Amino acid sequence: MPESNIAIILLGTKYPGNIGSAARAMFNMGLSRLILAAPKCSVNEESYRLARSGGPILDSARTCRSLESALRGIGFLVGTTGKTGGYRARTLSPRSLAPRILDHAAGQKVGILFGPEDTGLVDHDLGVCQLLMRIPTRPNAASINLAQSVMIVCYELLLGTLEREPGPVPALASVEQVEAMYAQFEKALLEIGFLHSENTKHMMMRIRRMLGKAGLERSDVGVLRGIARQIHWFAGSRGK
Amino acid sequence: MPESNIAIILLGTKYPGNIGSAARAMFNMGLSRLILAAPKCSVNEESYRLARSGGPILDSARTCRSLESALRGIGFLVGTTGKTGGYRARTLSPRSLAPRILDHAAGQKVGILFGPEDTGLVDHDLGVCQLLMRIPTRPNAASINLAQSVMIVCYELLLGTLEREPGPVPALASVEQVEAMYAQFEKALLEIGFLHSENTKHMMMRIRRMLGKAGLERSDVGVLRGIARQIHWFAGSRGK
Repeated sequence: MPESNIAIILLGTKYPGNIGSAARAMFNMGLSRLILAAPKCSVNEESYRLARSGGPILDSARTCRSLESALRGIGFLVGTTGKTGGYRARTLSPRSLAPRILDHAAGQKVGILFGPEDTGLVDHDLGVCQLLMRIPTRPNAASINLAQSVMIVCYELLLGTLEREPGPVPALASVEQVEAMYAQFEKALLEIGFLHSENTKHMMMRIRRMLGKAGLERSDVGVLRGIARQIHWFAGSRGK
Repeated sequence: MPESNIAIILLGTKYPGNIGSAARAMFNMGLSRLILAAPKCSVNEESYRLARSGGPILDSARTCRSLESALRGIGFLVGTTGKTGGYRARTLSPRSLAPRILDHAAGQKVGILFGPEDTGLVDHDLGVCQLLMRIPTRPNAASINLAQSVMIVCYELLLGTLEREPGPVPALASVEQVEAMYAQFEKALLEIGFLHSENTKHMMMRIRRMLGKAGLERSDVGVLRGIARQIHWFAGSRGK
């Protein structure tokens, strides 16, 4: 079942009640893997009270000190954001993304990342994600409650499961592999002067958004690292 | 706007927090008419705290002593239920019902009725409704939190509204633009020795497959051409 490969990852959550309400939503929509990354609060009685039948999800939730450790083993990572504009212009809706998430989850671990209640995910966290998801809202909406966001996403995944016919599943590169590639590429692009101090952050984010859409497989990462290595070698040999 | 004709009617609600959370969900999804029918609690500070930007919805919420008085003026009433079986076998999903609700709301007042937290709507209340709606869940799910149910329904109505008008479509780069980029890239990769006569065809095909998956937009092509240009420039300056 692809659902068992999908983890809801809550980053830096502040309110125990939201963790409980998220677990309740997950339970009702058929998801069970919850990861708390660098939480700002502990699961407590209120969490269990609000989780209702989702209590066992809280029992088995994994708590990790950092986002990095939470992402270990995750092959496909989707970040949620409420903001729009800039590189966030390329967000996808939960409805359009659900089938793709389920396809990926048939063959590997998938994470769906939710940021803290007040700020949401910041640029650095979003950069690690292969795709960005945004729940449609009215114009000028305020932020959506964390557990309600989790609910919408889990609901779309459940509907996707009900509608789903299995498709072919490419094995994606892990987040670690992809991050190592980006680091190598950034270095190479700095060496040849494509990147410089003013444009590096923005340009790398654009490159991340572009390649994230592709759903990079291991062999893709191999090709990209090969290009970066060659640029680096070339830049080095030029220096001599 | 049909949305302004749609009222969320909460019957016999027990927890002020749920009223607030429902208002927050309504606000973000573009609904504003809230009716409290025979509530078992009052709107209080907690309601406003949880409502966030939905505070004005609480301000203007109408409170009615009975369901009958709450339904005055409503032409089309949809009841929500979590239970299945019996006459409830004829429930429809929020997704399939949303277009119909919006159609009705274009010409008259529509109500969507939610029961108390513990029991949901009982037979008598459901009897008054023209149609019954049930949010899909996993098998053997527990009841869905009231405000989360309101969220799902409002979300489907918002999506239904958005689908009535065409949304923004990302403009992909033209084939010519993409081909010109590939040609430029191939040249640059040859110059730095990443490509050579034996691997060029195969490797370019792999790169095409990888970037093809991304669905390249014009700005993506711009970034890629920028990288290729810089590699070329770098290679040329080395030759000198």
